Amino acid sequence: MLYFAGLGIEQSLTLKSVFAMKKCEKIYYETYTSPVINEAVQKELFEQFGASRVELVKRTFVEDGRKILETASHADTALICSGDPMIATTHQELRTRAIKGGIATTIIHGSSIITAVGGEFGLHSYNFGRMVTMTREPMQYTAYNTIFNNLLKDLHSTVLLEWDEASDFFLDPNSAVKSLLESEKDLKQEVFDPDSLVLIASRVGTDSSKLSALTFHDLEIADLGKPPHILVIPGKLHFTELEALSAILGRNAGTFRDNSAKISRISQRMVTKYSTKTIKALARAKDAAAHSEHKINFVDIFENVECYTRDAERFLNEGKEELAVLSIGYAEGLLDSLRFGGQLEFEW
Amino acid sequence: MLYFAGLGIEQSLTLKSVFAMKKCEKIYYETYTSPVINEAVQKELFEQFGASRVELVKRTFVEDGRKILETASHADTALICSGDPMIATTHQELRTRAIKGGIATTIIHGSSIITAVGGEFGLHSYNFGRMVTMTREPMQYTAYNTIFNNLLKDLHSTVLLEWDEASDFFLDPNSAVKSLLESEKDLKQEVFDPDSLVLIASRVGTDSSKLSALTFHDLEIADLGKPPHILVIPGKLHFTELEALSAILGRNAGTFRDNSAKISRISQRMVTKYSTKTIKALARAKDAAAHSEHKINFVDIFENVECYTRDAERFLNEGKEELAVLSIGYAEGLLDSLRFGGQLEFEW
Repeated sequence: MLYFAGLGIEQSLTLKSVFAMKKCEKIYYETYTSPVINEAVQKELFEQFGASRVELVKRTFVEDGRKILETASHADTALICSGDPMIATTHQELRTRAIKGGIATTIIHGSSIITAVGGEFGLHSYNFGRMVTMTREPMQYTAYNTIFNNLLKDLHSTVLLEWDEASDFFLDPNSAVKSLLESEKDLKQEVFDPDSLVLIASRVGTDSSKLSALTFHDLEIADLGKPPHILVIPGKLHFTELEALSAILGRNAGTFRDNSAKISRISQRMVTKYSTKTIKALARAKDAAAHSEHKINFVDIFENVECYTRDAERFLNEGKEELAVLSIGYAEGLLDSLRFGGQLEFEW
Repeated sequence: MLYFAGLGIEQSLTLKSVFAMKKCEKIYYETYTSPVINEAVQKELFEQFGASRVELVKRTFVEDGRKILETASHADTALICSGDPMIATTHQELRTRAIKGGIATTIIHGSSIITAVGGEFGLHSYNFGRMVTMTREPMQYTAYNTIFNNLLKDLHSTVLLEWDEASDFFLDPNSAVKSLLESEKDLKQEVFDPDSLVLIASRVGTDSSKLSALTFHDLEIADLGKPPHILVIPGKLHFTELEALSAILGRNAGTFRDNSAKISRISQRMVTKYSTKTIKALARAKDAAAHSEHKINFVDIFENVECYTRDAERFLNEGKEELAVLSIGYAEGLLDSLRFGGQLEFEW
C-alpha cells in the first residue's frame, strides 16, 4: 500500500493518518510543494514514527519515484506532504504509476489553501471561478484573461504564486500585480488599474498568518513578510461576503472596491458604441435622401435601420449578446449599402 | 477564543487541533453539514475531551448561535464540523458575529471534498471552473448554464448535491443528471445528452468510498449506494488526466467521452449558419442584378458582402467571436438593403 498523506495547511497529521502511518515501513516527507519549512513538523514526525523510518526527500526524488514504488511494492509506505496531496501533479503521476504497477494506493486528504483561502476572507466557495498560477515570466496573459473572464461573471479568482524550492524562489505578490498591470497595457481590456482590489493571505496555517486587502498601487510598495502568500482578486462581493470581509479586516465595507463593476464585455462596448454611431449616420442619410432622385424605398430601409438598432440595445439588456451584435451589424449594413451602391452620400 | 475546527472528509482531527481543543471549556459538534453520521467520531471526541464537554448540535442551534457566542465570550470554545469549517455559510455568519462581538476566532482547516474530489479522479485542480450546487427543485437552469460555460472553456464542473439533515434528504445523482437532461429540453444548447460523461465519487474518506464513471443514461438506472455523493462533469481531459482516470478506474482511455468536444458557442453556430445563407443569397442577388435597370453600383456592394462574409469566418477561426458576428450581420444588412429599398428582388 502506498499512502499519500496531506499535512494540510496547518502542517499536522490527523489522528487517522497517524494510525495508518504507524504501519508503514518507510515514510517519505517531501518539502518542495510548499515553502513552509517547518522543523517542528519534522520533529513531530521523528517522534511519532522514529527517525530511522522518516526520510526527507526533494522534487527529483519524487519525480524519479523508483525508490518509493520499489518500497511500496513490498511494504506499506507513505509519502507525506503539505496541504492536500493530490494538488501536486508529481504526486498524481506517481499514483498513476503505482496503480499501473499493481500497487494499491490510498489518499489521506489534507486541508488545502485553495479551499481555505476563501473561508479566511469570508468569501463563498461557489463564487470562485477558475484559479490560476502566476509565474515570474513576463506577459502573464493567461492569468489576465482567466481573471478577466471570472470578473465578467462577477466571480473571484484565486491566484497561486510560483514557488521553486531548488532556487528558493517565491513570486512575491508585488511583482504579480505589477505583471497584471503590464498585461493591461498590452491587452487593453480595462480589467485592472492601480485602484483594483486584491486580497492577500500570507502564511495561512502558521502562527504569523496575516490577511490584507490592498489596492494594486498600495501592494506594489507593501511589505508582506515571508512567503507563502496567495492572492484573491475578488469579483462582485455579496453583501454577506462584504460584511464578513469588513469584520475580519476591521474596515468599513465602503472601502472595498467592486472589481467587476466596470468590467464590460467586448460585445457590450461594441453595441453601445455602434448604436450611437448608427443613429447619427441615419440622421445624415435621411437628409441626403431628401434630395435624392433615386427611385428607392428609403423609408423602409431607414425604418429597418432604426428597428434593428433598437433591437440591438434591447437584446443587450436581455443578456442576448450575440443577437445584439448581429443586429447592430445588420443595421449598419443596411445603411452602408446605400453608400457602396452610390445611392446616397453621407458620412458616418 | 472561538475555534472553528474541521474534521476533514476523513472525520478526524489533526494533532494540532486536538491540542487546541484540550483547552476548550465546551466543544460543539455539529452534524448537519454532512450526511456522514459517524459514531466512531463521536466516540473519539468523547474519549479525547470527555463526554461532558462535547455537545452534539443541529442547524437551528448554530444558526441561532447565541449559546455558542455566550460561551466563547468567557472561555475557549470550539465548533467542530465535517470537512473544512468555512465552506458552510452558517459558520461564516457565526464567525462574523463573533468578531463583531469582540470574540477572537481561529479557523483550523480540514480537508474538503471540493478540493479532494479532483485528486480522487486524477484531475488537475486548475482545470475546474465554477462549482455549482443542485437541488431537488425543477428547472436547474443555473446548474445547466454554469456547466455549459465551463464546458465551453474545456473546464470540469464539480456538482454538489442538496443535503437536508432535518428531512434526511440527499439529492441522488440519478435525479441530478435527469434534471440536467430535462433542462436540455428547455434550453436546447446541446450541452447534455444520454451519452454525456459524469464522474461520481461516493462516500469519499470512508471505508466504503467508491469512484464511478458513467454515461447519463447508465447513471439514471445505477445504484450507487448510500450518500454522500458528489459529481464531476468533466470537460476536455488532458492526456495526463486521461491516463490517471484510466488507471484509477481500470478502464481504457478511449471509453471516456470528451464532453467539451461538441459544445459550441451561440456565436459559432450563428456565423456558420448565416455565412452559408448569405453566400447563397448573394448568388441569387447577382442573378437579379443582371436584369436590373437601377443605376446602382451593385458590384461594389456584392464585393463587400463577400469580403465581410469571409472576414466573419476568419474572425471566428481567430477566436474573435464578437467581430465575427458583427461582420456577418453587416454582410447580411448590405445585401438586404437592396430588397428593402426595392432595388432587387431575390430570396434568402
